[in-house]
Amino acid sequence: MTVLVAAQQTETPDMPRSRKARLAYRNGLVASTAGVAPGFVQGNLAILPAEYASAFHRFCQLNPKPCPIIGMSDVGSPYIPSLGADLDIRTDVPRYRVWRDGEVVDEPTDVTSYWRDDLVTFVLGCSFSFEEALLDEGMPIRHIEKNVRVPMYRTNIACGEAGPFAGPMVVSMRPFKPADAIRAVQITSRYPAVHGAPVHLGHPHLIGIKDIAKPDYGDPVPVADDEIPVFWACGVTPQSVINAAKLPFAITHSPGLMLVTDLKNRTMAVI
Amino acid sequence: MTVLVAAQQTETPDMPRSRKARLAYRNGLVASTAGVAPGFVQGNLAILPAEYASAFHRFCQLNPKPCPIIGMSDVGSPYIPSLGADLDIRTDVPRYRVWRDGEVVDEPTDVTSYWRDDLVTFVLGCSFSFEEALLDEGMPIRHIEKNVRVPMYRTNIACGEAGPFAGPMVVSMRPFKPADAIRAVQITSRYPAVHGAPVHLGHPHLIGIKDIAKPDYGDPVPVADDEIPVFWACGVTPQSVINAAKLPFAITHSPGLMLVTDLKNRTMAVI
Repeated sequence: MTVLVAAQQTETPDMPRSRKARLAYRNGLVASTAGVAPGFVQGNLAILPAEYASAFHRFCQLNPKPCPIIGMSDVGSPYIPSLGADLDIRTDVPRYRVWRDGEVVDEPTDVTSYWRDDLVTFVLGCSFSFEEALLDEGMPIRHIEKNVRVPMYRTNIACGEAGPFAGPMVVSMRPFKPADAIRAVQITSRYPAVHGAPVHLGHPHLIGIKDIAKPDYGDPVPVADDEIPVFWACGVTPQSVINAAKLPFAITHSPGLMLVTDLKNRTMAVI
Repeated sequence: MTVLVAAQQTETPDMPRSRKARLAYRNGLVASTAGVAPGFVQGNLAILPAEYASAFHRFCQLNPKPCPIIGMSDVGSPYIPSLGADLDIRTDVPRYRVWRDGEVVDEPTDVTSYWRDDLVTFVLGCSFSFEEALLDEGMPIRHIEKNVRVPMYRTNIACGEAGPFAGPMVVSMRPFKPADAIRAVQITSRYPAVHGAPVHLGHPHLIGIKDIAKPDYGDPVPVADDEIPVFWACGVTPQSVINAAKLPFAITHSPGLMLVTDLKNRTMAVI
């Protein structure tokens, strides 16, 4: 693989934008991946020792809305050819979080020095894909208009448990006028591999959200009187669950700095 | 056609339930058609002079959610073979309303004596079909549980106008818990020919409904604090619009006493 990787250290004009982005991150660029490669799927990253991987895999199976798997590596392999022929998971994400016993111990831009032969990589769908589908249909997305992070909330919806993995679902919220909320359900239902349809709308307190103006992650956005808040399962859920499991070792991406894949968002639509 | 109709005055065991039902109504039975032929599509009826039919057809085209056409007759023909080989629109509905200048002048069980060579029949999809789809997926429907008529409301949503046909959309309301409301959007989206996805949810006052407990048609049903009201376009819309147009002559069905067709509900699903 050395030759292959070496051959791709230089951008060429015919590379897809996704691959150009990965190459830039591999070469040291650190920046939010939002909007970096329009049309391409980005993913949440979870890298775990094989000892925990099968339980985590089962957790994802039990909780497909917050944890939709779009790619996995073989044990010990840093490659996931289905997501990008040249993709190297150790170098191609702008910034990582290295966890020990539930604490972040490092936030490097390359995890080659942390790599182990027993690591399994999970790549999980992310809301960027369905947001692109919403934008393509002319739907206004408040946090994008306001140029802030999407508001996210810990809920009272318990995820299905598997091994050490357990905890509440984290959701992201986007306010819509009622007719647009209905349309948003339809559009995102087409994309089950990137969180799919909303999990709730209308009554935040019913899912344990006390104050919509105080998200647990991200930034608050206003919800107008003629709008209803719509909630989608969020990829922060697996990160929160991995954190709570206090595994001896794990690697994730840094929030907002995702893995950019060569998959096209439109191919994620089931209908 | 006389022989054909005469041959079908007697029920036979191999007849589909829809045809048995039509035969019973043809022979004088007057009863609600709700639940009479599970699995079969029922339709709202609008019979108009040809002079007004093309404008009404355009009205339906402009307003497919309240007025989804599932069948039409040729001018002057009382038959619609695509909805039932033996179907006779003059006799097969339990009870009709005959309108003159916007007033109901008769409610006969047979309109043979009113028939004219210039009449055109429109059959429009009805909510019974999508309610069956909801029930099949285990969704609770409040007015069915309470054994009352669905609550319906005149809204401030203006229909697209065509010729003399204009007026507000009438909607029906079913309360659901939020996660069920999302599921209900998905399920009914599959059935555009029977009103399809909801037109509104959550904020009745935004569509001009002042008091959810006081429907304009049908019966009120309770909406619990942990539920949201979900609104679908309703087949009462065309009847209300025809009424307001004060046509010299028109025939409709009597509310709740629909045309039972041989179409299967499941064939109405577009996916």
